[in-house]
Amino acid sequence: MLDRDILITGESVRQACRCGRLVEQTSGLAPGFAQANLVVLPRDEAYDFLRFCRANPKPCPLLDVTEPGDPTPRQVAPTADLRTDLPRYRVWEHGQLVEEPTDIMRWWRDDLVSFVIGCSFTFEAALLRAGVPVRHIELGRNVPMYRTNIPCQPAGQFHGPLVVSMRPLRPADAIRAVQITSRYPSVHGAPVHLGLPEQIGIRDLSHPDFGDAVPIADDELPVFWACGVTPQAAIMSARPPFAITHSPGCMFVTDVLDETLAVG
Amino acid sequence: MLDRDILITGESVRQACRCGRLVEQTSGLAPGFAQANLVVLPRDEAYDFLRFCRANPKPCPLLDVTEPGDPTPRQVAPTADLRTDLPRYRVWEHGQLVEEPTDIMRWWRDDLVSFVIGCSFTFEAALLRAGVPVRHIELGRNVPMYRTNIPCQPAGQFHGPLVVSMRPLRPADAIRAVQITSRYPSVHGAPVHLGLPEQIGIRDLSHPDFGDAVPIADDELPVFWACGVTPQAAIMSARPPFAITHSPGCMFVTDVLDETLAVG
Repeated sequence: MLDRDILITGESVRQACRCGRLVEQTSGLAPGFAQANLVVLPRDEAYDFLRFCRANPKPCPLLDVTEPGDPTPRQVAPTADLRTDLPRYRVWEHGQLVEEPTDIMRWWRDDLVSFVIGCSFTFEAALLRAGVPVRHIELGRNVPMYRTNIPCQPAGQFHGPLVVSMRPLRPADAIRAVQITSRYPSVHGAPVHLGLPEQIGIRDLSHPDFGDAVPIADDELPVFWACGVTPQAAIMSARPPFAITHSPGCMFVTDVLDETLAVG
Repeated sequence: MLDRDILITGESVRQACRCGRLVEQTSGLAPGFAQANLVVLPRDEAYDFLRFCRANPKPCPLLDVTEPGDPTPRQVAPTADLRTDLPRYRVWEHGQLVEEPTDIMRWWRDDLVSFVIGCSFTFEAALLRAGVPVRHIELGRNVPMYRTNIPCQPAGQFHGPLVVSMRPLRPADAIRAVQITSRYPSVHGAPVHLGLPEQIGIRDLSHPDFGDAVPIADDELPVFWACGVTPQAAIMSARPPFAITHSPGCMFVTDVLDETLAVG
């Protein structure tokens, strides 16, 4: 059985994935190292997707984009192989999930481009360090996520609603959380909304569109951040012939220290 | 009749006060120059009040403290005379308002210490520059202020509740307002609360304890900042034998540029 406690760097997590020992979610691994969402597309679709990310930086903060066919994200993990170094992947054809493998060697093509997209784990670590409680972590659940009525800026075939994650916070903690997460623009940054979910088209907080519901106390406000599931939802809407993403919670662990992503 | 448009610097506003031409509120005068609350106390009470300000920096951000008997705040306005350079004052004896004069020459004593305390006008200017609307300014009213159930840290005889000002904002503007006002810690800084007024002991937003009520739309949250009325409320509670403050809205205009109070 894998001892998760020894996976204290990005390199060690990636090594454990590469040799097939780690095939499950990466939350809590390699504390202090930034984890990331992965989107892989053929070069033909990559240009429009790159434009989509540029136009929607809050849900799609790009940490790296590879050269076509190159499986190594040279900016964020120069020793990594994106084909083997995540615990689990999802392979999509025309918007349909066709396989959920632990590596994508047999799916790899010379025209594939990988997008490494910032993830909220980085700012959640900063919240916890500041004593701001994060409900879904306390409960050992996935964060609740909701489709909003806010459209992303479309780019070519890619379009869709902004998807947000929600964390319930007491008002003073919500204010502190705005301050803290504002320092991390490359991992979704400040919240996009708080307090009035119906204003952004969320009718029932107890039924998230993705992830798990969490309870909200009477003295708490729901606080909403742009979410890295947004680009996956845009890909599902666009139904490109071929795409690969990470499997939910099974992130790519980079060599980038969370703190180097902080501004100010 | 006084042409307010020519009062474009702290010095020009103070000059207009000094010669008796300006005897009304200072909102909008000398744009870009920080305005301030004034508290004047005998040296005997000044030490406890200084401790009160240090222990409660959000409602009582000190911009300057004078030497006993010196009417000039040398850090923030080295050419000013605090006895004449405000439009109107309030003189208090044992917590009772005894006069509201346009200068305090006849009340001045060699043992008086003046506290110059930051004011929300500075961060309101920053909000307006960022396109965040400020309701009471739009309506030409005084900001609504409320006593909360949050006690200040007491110091000697000075004690009392935190008083907050309230500005209704749409959620995205509330988030932006947290970011903007966080840059101004010496003029009350980030909000202390938002969204759930009953949590801080405010039952009816339509009946403020000070200032004027403003309407709140369905798509807005009430956002609360620590308020410079807090130290005045503490003085009214402590009922010292003698004190002088500015008259509401009739602030002291300094030579300090608002932007020099911004951090980051």
